[in-house]
Amino acid sequence: MTAINDLKEYFIEIKRLQFVSSVLSWDQQTYMPSGSVSGRAKQLSLVQKLIHQRLTSSKVSELIQEAKKTNDLNDMESAMVRESERDHLLATKLPEKLVMDITETGAEAVEAWKKAREQKKLKGSTFVPLLEKNVALQIEQAEKLATHPDLYSTLIDLFEPGATYDWIANIFNKIKPKLVAFVKKLDSSSSKPKQAILRKKYDVDEQFKLSVEMIKKLNFDLTHGRQDRSTHPFTSSLSSVDTRITTRTTEDFLNECIFGTIHECGHALYDMGFKKEIHDTILANGCSMGIHESQSRMWENIVGRSKEFWQYWYPTFQKYFPENLKDYPLEDFYGAINVVKPSFIRVNADEVTYGLHIILRFEIEKDLIEGKIQVNELAEVWNSKFEELLGLTPLDDAEGVLQDIHWGWGLIGYFPTYFLGSLYASQIYSDALKKQPSLPEDYAKGEFSNLLTYLRENVHQHGSIYRANDLINRITGEDLNPDYFLKYLEEKFYPIYGI
Amino acid sequence: MTAINDLKEYFIEIKRLQFVSSVLSWDQQTYMPSGSVSGRAKQLSLVQKLIHQRLTSSKVSELIQEAKKTNDLNDMESAMVRESERDHLLATKLPEKLVMDITETGAEAVEAWKKAREQKKLKGSTFVPLLEKNVALQIEQAEKLATHPDLYSTLIDLFEPGATYDWIANIFNKIKPKLVAFVKKLDSSSSKPKQAILRKKYDVDEQFKLSVEMIKKLNFDLTHGRQDRSTHPFTSSLSSVDTRITTRTTEDFLNECIFGTIHECGHALYDMGFKKEIHDTILANGCSMGIHESQSRMWENIVGRSKEFWQYWYPTFQKYFPENLKDYPLEDFYGAINVVKPSFIRVNADEVTYGLHIILRFEIEKDLIEGKIQVNELAEVWNSKFEELLGLTPLDDAEGVLQDIHWGWGLIGYFPTYFLGSLYASQIYSDALKKQPSLPEDYAKGEFSNLLTYLRENVHQHGSIYRANDLINRITGEDLNPDYFLKYLEEKFYPIYGI
Repeated sequence: MTAINDLKEYFIEIKRLQFVSSVLSWDQQTYMPSGSVSGRAKQLSLVQKLIHQRLTSSKVSELIQEAKKTNDLNDMESAMVRESERDHLLATKLPEKLVMDITETGAEAVEAWKKAREQKKLKGSTFVPLLEKNVALQIEQAEKLATHPDLYSTLIDLFEPGATYDWIANIFNKIKPKLVAFVKKLDSSSSKPKQAILRKKYDVDEQFKLSVEMIKKLNFDLTHGRQDRSTHPFTSSLSSVDTRITTRTTEDFLNECIFGTIHECGHALYDMGFKKEIHDTILANGCSMGIHESQSRMWENIVGRSKEFWQYWYPTFQKYFPENLKDYPLEDFYGAINVVKPSFIRVNADEVTYGLHIILRFEIEKDLIEGKIQVNELAEVWNSKFEELLGLTPLDDAEGVLQDIHWGWGLIGYFPTYFLGSLYASQIYSDALKKQPSLPEDYAKGEFSNLLTYLRENVHQHGSIYRANDLINRITGEDLNPDYFLKYLEEKFYPIYGI
Repeated sequence: MTAINDLKEYFIEIKRLQFVSSVLSWDQQTYMPSGSVSGRAKQLSLVQKLIHQRLTSSKVSELIQEAKKTNDLNDMESAMVRESERDHLLATKLPEKLVMDITETGAEAVEAWKKAREQKKLKGSTFVPLLEKNVALQIEQAEKLATHPDLYSTLIDLFEPGATYDWIANIFNKIKPKLVAFVKKLDSSSSKPKQAILRKKYDVDEQFKLSVEMIKKLNFDLTHGRQDRSTHPFTSSLSSVDTRITTRTTEDFLNECIFGTIHECGHALYDMGFKKEIHDTILANGCSMGIHESQSRMWENIVGRSKEFWQYWYPTFQKYFPENLKDYPLEDFYGAINVVKPSFIRVNADEVTYGLHIILRFEIEKDLIEGKIQVNELAEVWNSKFEELLGLTPLDDAEGVLQDIHWGWGLIGYFPTYFLGSLYASQIYSDALKKQPSLPEDYAKGEFSNLLTYLRENVHQHGSIYRANDLINRITGEDLNPDYFLKYLEEKFYPIYGI
């Protein structure tokens, strides 16, 4: 077993450097002073260079070849070999300078994105040339990696190993018309829930305090994690015993902080649940971003927007915000948080229209990476596509093309995993419910550990031992099947809309 | 000039890794969750390993030899060669494992120190074995480095290049009886100032807010720095454009936050003032810790406890804390912050007894490193020496041997530089005053940039281009001379004590 152990140890140092990079990046997004980005960008790219050097060293292929000779590898060991080889092969295709450029440009571009977002305008902002550079670097990266015949699939594969543009497009294209029709059907109901109560004034510090109370109850471990604020909410593991989330608060929209926090908490519970044996190893990752998003979106939506969840939490909310909620009925509040209505901001979107936000980005990214759209056309393209899919036109770019941080960091190919997450979530949750039909009753009692135990057992502990397709088959006995999601939507929303 | 440039570039990567290490350490001391120390310790030691590898590579000595052949090096270039050679030679004497052990043990020990300090007891705490390990590792380090015949001088030299135990002991031994006599003389006065006003209740959040207002006025650049809270206040540069300070607040002792903040601000102004050419280079450091402390202690004491400083600030303080200060006269407040009286906590000590706190640590460190004191005797030795020098016995170890973080981090040989700082400060300030006699009048107007300009010109911009002894000679035309300090004390405190 020495060969496997040697390989494991070799990659532990890479993992630690990745954690170091996460610390640098977490700090940049939370507390770093505004004028300090140039120094941080150089540090981030240096750490990426060191990771790249270690990944591409000839030592690695020796270690991999040795490990491959070992007989009777268990699942974990095979996965270590598989992931080590994947990372090594990908890295060897990329020149060191490209890796450093991607990181450094991303870190600089994010700061420019923040400013452009504040000014609500992409065109003419300092973000434009940096975003152009991000896109060019991603095209170059995809050309170099070339793991798939088309560039966009190569990028998608970095976040969702095994997935391709065609596979995802096929799924999305089937769901798209159904979602559009579903939104129309709900809209035609004569007894629609109302959202106005969520748009009253809610003190932002109280929101933050309450959100911390919520994650505690959801079993987020505050001795091995924390919550802070940032421009764009995110989850990041700074070590195998340190997983942090961020949230943001809006005084006149309660959803932003509450559901944002539950979403990130879902991600964090995944990272906090890797079994000890894979701590610090190459397997201390989610198995794919789609599976990662399944955890965040399951807690945010299936649990966090369920009636039973609010049977437990609503009295606490009424105590925090008596001026708005004291006399407001639970049933109406439950309707309010489940209003289905096209809106501008993805992270605040309801469960039904959310998929359309993703499909929009998915289609734009495909064209962007194939050079069919230029960065300086991006705002127009966004707005006209948005009109087409969601029937609304953003008033400015802050509620349009500038709302998300991802392209700022140079992440292209990440977005589709969000919606895959919703689909995976419904399918996995349906299995959980089959095995433990009383789960919703738990929520009504403020008891969330039974679902967590199920997820720890079936999803979290494994880290990236299994590929997404293996995992969903192990759990549910079939490939990803979007019908679970569509069925979930009908069963949930018809009663809310009196249909 | 390529040889010099190559050397410079080579060390820039080392400097960046040191900055990365500072980010990791800053986070550990401010926001890191309590259970996450094991992961962080491993990251810190990995970064130290990478630094050590780069410092000891055979490439470095080649680069140094090439650079040495260059003719007509200017001061900055000569200093780069000097410092590069020093760091290289020191590093080559230390095995990689020792470097990693020192870092990892320090990071673990600091967390144990925090807990022991909370419980107010060293003996029997988990800090004891870790502190023993710190001491053993420092002894091993000193034996390996052996830059001086005695171990303690070798450690001191790491913080105060060129200084030895004998040189410092000679200075301290001359001052010690004078300080003791001076304290007695003040104590015998019949019109002593009173400190009680500082011991009333001051809201800690208001203290923090006010302290941020103060550092702004002192020209701390908040776009390239920030202030947070930590168990032990410190200053750290996380890049050449990112210098952060921390403070701590005590509800019933105003000095802790106010003078702690001004102290750290003084450090930060030094780091923020390095000239652009040395940013990110091996010279982007204070020239010694003694000179660094001269900056913090000058702002804290010579400026921050001067009458003119409070002529400007007192009205603001009265506005923040009207319940305590509205009717309290400025003259009495000025007396209160300048009460000279033996007390337990070094960082809160007055300017006169402060030196005795340092002499105590200096003598203990010498014996500890020579094996004449063991860690498990440390509390007793501390208390009896404290009684001897300051006439008081600490009630518990939190106000005794556990008050400082330094030994937790494994820093031995650092303490004497604080008092050297006071001595350097008086000597440098005396020159500043000769050239700009109106400086104190500036403070009364809330104008602090003239002193800063003088310090930028004479001290800050140079970073570590000059050694401490060269610098003090360049500025004042003589070696370190403690008489400036003693004269300063007399001129300041006799009037306050009506002598």
